[in-house]
Amino acid sequence: MPRRMSPALRRDQLVRTALRLFADHPPELVSVEDLVEAAGVSRALFYRYFANIHELRMAALRVVVEEVTAAIAPPDEGPLLDQVRYALAAFLGSAQTYASAYVALLRTGSVIATNETNELVDSVREHVMRTVAQRLRLSGPPAPMLELTMRSWFAVVEVSSVEWLRTGELTRDQLESWLVDQLLAMLSTTARHDQGTATSLRAALSR
Amino acid sequence: MPRRMSPALRRDQLVRTALRLFADHPPELVSVEDLVEAAGVSRALFYRYFANIHELRMAALRVVVEEVTAAIAPPDEGPLLDQVRYALAAFLGSAQTYASAYVALLRTGSVIATNETNELVDSVREHVMRTVAQRLRLSGPPAPMLELTMRSWFAVVEVSSVEWLRTGELTRDQLESWLVDQLLAMLSTTARHDQGTATSLRAALSR
Repeated sequence: MPRRMSPALRRDQLVRTALRLFADHPPELVSVEDLVEAAGVSRALFYRYFANIHELRMAALRVVVEEVTAAIAPPDEGPLLDQVRYALAAFLGSAQTYASAYVALLRTGSVIATNETNELVDSVREHVMRTVAQRLRLSGPPAPMLELTMRSWFAVVEVSSVEWLRTGELTRDQLESWLVDQLLAMLSTTARHDQGTATSLRAALSR
Repeated sequence: MPRRMSPALRRDQLVRTALRLFADHPPELVSVEDLVEAAGVSRALFYRYFANIHELRMAALRVVVEEVTAAIAPPDEGPLLDQVRYALAAFLGSAQTYASAYVALLRTGSVIATNETNELVDSVREHVMRTVAQRLRLSGPPAPMLELTMRSWFAVVEVSSVEWLRTGELTRDQLESWLVDQLLAMLSTTARHDQGTATSLRAALSR
């Protein structure tokens, strides 16, 4: 490892090491000692870049959120359902890569769930909701019940992916096809309840 | 108001006053001043019962959770779907009664969402899950995918009821019938994916 790494690279190296550890260890259990040992650096060096382990954890979680957000952007063409499958597969892939960090971000009762992490998670939900609205190419904002259904499905994705990572009872393919079918079932249920949703979906699917 | 109220009654009066205020005001915005004015007591008296406003907030939120848990227990007989409707109606009624406290308990990013409140919310989810398992009268624990579907639906109930209380875009009847239909759609989707769920549901519904 080069001793003369630039500050930006060195900081990034520490964040990447934290992320690697977070794949298998809950972020709240990773200490400065674990970190410096895994990165092969001194404690003194660590404290030149971060005031404490919380600061590094937040930096690492922000990287997770940025990567998830970037990864799930589907190609802006092709059938809508293929775009959903693409984004969902990318999302579950990122969740699996950063498993412990992902579970820690979403699990209520997590030691590290704070207003700061909740805001990070909310920012992803808002980003996905804006992408959905844009890809549906509606002339106005989505019907309120359509938006409610999408947000409800996001909650289903979150709950079920955390259970998937924690219990290992499903394969990723099983979870993915179950989630797509749940979305279709939920949308068609809402379309039966709400004319606005039915109209929006018909317009989006007929293009 | 009697001046010689017993300590237990006086404490209860303060908690009830807080709950009344929480129907319209977010718990994090209710101050000791608001509270003592609404209860018609002195600040000194308040501090004889609670160390600070956070302690009163938590006491009030625990009462909400206890009342919700008690209210949603359906009669232990009759068709399962009627039991679901009963519990859901009671749940939404409680949510409406304590609207601001309910939203504060569930909203991520809420100023008062802490590990303490998250544990309270988790305890309700676990209680409801145990009730479901018991009412289905299965011979063993529910199939993992059936449990996942129920937990996913709880998340849909939480997300949609918070949106309902915040936006007022749906009537309670609309939300209730939408949620029951979403549960049926989600269960039948899971039954198509998972033999264990199909078997459990068939057994439960044939009784």
